[in-house]
Amino acid sequence: MRINYKLKRLFIRQTLALNEEIKIEGAQAFYLVHVLRMKEGAEILLFNGQDGEWLAKLIVVKKKFVIVQLIHQERLQTTHSNLIYCFAPLKNARLDYMVQKAVEMGVSILQPVITHHTQVSRINMARMEANVIEASEQCGILSLPKCVSALSLSELLARWDETQPLFFCDEEHTSHNPLHSFKKDKVTMPGVLIGPEGGFSEEERSFLKKYPFVISISLGPRILRADTAAVAALALLNATVGDWFMD
Amino acid sequence: MRINYKLKRLFIRQTLALNEEIKIEGAQAFYLVHVLRMKEGAEILLFNGQDGEWLAKLIVVKKKFVIVQLIHQERLQTTHSNLIYCFAPLKNARLDYMVQKAVEMGVSILQPVITHHTQVSRINMARMEANVIEASEQCGILSLPKCVSALSLSELLARWDETQPLFFCDEEHTSHNPLHSFKKDKVTMPGVLIGPEGGFSEEERSFLKKYPFVISISLGPRILRADTAAVAALALLNATVGDWFMD
Repeated sequence: MRINYKLKRLFIRQTLALNEEIKIEGAQAFYLVHVLRMKEGAEILLFNGQDGEWLAKLIVVKKKFVIVQLIHQERLQTTHSNLIYCFAPLKNARLDYMVQKAVEMGVSILQPVITHHTQVSRINMARMEANVIEASEQCGILSLPKCVSALSLSELLARWDETQPLFFCDEEHTSHNPLHSFKKDKVTMPGVLIGPEGGFSEEERSFLKKYPFVISISLGPRILRADTAAVAALALLNATVGDWFMD
Repeated sequence: MRINYKLKRLFIRQTLALNEEIKIEGAQAFYLVHVLRMKEGAEILLFNGQDGEWLAKLIVVKKKFVIVQLIHQERLQTTHSNLIYCFAPLKNARLDYMVQKAVEMGVSILQPVITHHTQVSRINMARMEANVIEASEQCGILSLPKCVSALSLSELLARWDETQPLFFCDEEHTSHNPLHSFKKDKVTMPGVLIGPEGGFSEEERSFLKKYPFVISISLGPRILRADTAAVAALALLNATVGDWFMD
């Protein structure tokens, strides 16, 4: 089923089922009533990560809350992709941006990784989750990606499922086309590792190369910012082992 | 030759040759002296789009200008890529962002295209060029991409070299993997066309499909923002027909 581009989509925590009436309060109600100025009879889409996507009609519109009724299921629930996005967190707005892009590119787990050159030590997880929800509403996915706590690079590698590849975007790597590194066989939970601005230290690079599941890929001859590298690497991965591969 | 990540790179208009002394003034001098607080003896890299990249040493540092001497050529001049980036311009900061990303992804021509849903009618070309220069300095390229004047979609198609493909990122297109659309044979000057937020109109989509050089590609099942779609499409193109293909 195609995504309906025209209607506003909201993520909510309640169960969704036919004819159910749901009360929407707080910031979401404010948004519908005071920003979008929606009236009774208006339609929105709801999803909760479990029950698919539902068309809902506003049946009561008050200043502080809205009641909607579920009219019919627009799309069935889909399962998660299985793409782990491991990234050195950036500061503030650039982190928001990185998180939004990763959601659009279909990652299932957002795994912050603290490296030598990472400039951020504490991550605001609530802000990261809010960004995930907003991006999920906009890009049409039905399962929210999961934000997990930061790990150091050595913790990440120690805990990695070694049957799955971790594609490491290595600025120093020049020897071959990145597409050749992505093979379809048996890849069920691949990861992409994106370093901080300033890249990985020499020590980290040699450390990474010791692990057989770590596969270095090159993203061409120019210096890419971390967020650009992330979208580029995820595009290649989607088109080879991910859900852009539709043939 | 590898890019030197450590030194500040500046684009300047003067000719670059061995032992040449060059006076740097204005905003660039301000940046070196007052922002980076560089002293005599400090090193930077210079490029002008024609003479390769040069290591330069600051030999005079004054409040309003700097004189540098060219020490040696670090990298030979490279030729342009041949990638035409056709995009519906976005507003202000988001346009800056789109332009920077396109430069990082190695486009040679930035071609704004006005479509039905484009929200911008006048483009600040000077601002666009300033963004191109800044991104070029940061990402290490030696040739500046060229900014050309906006065209309407019909003008673009009427003027297009029909021996070259124009890859059209079509939200409604679902039938196959984007990688299959990129073929290496005889592609010397491909283009990528990215629509505005809100996509192309139905009329525009049918119009585009009439041209045999227009090739629809799909960027997966999620709704991508225009800037995300641009980076993703350019990554796929680089990895198949562009300069990421190194084998």
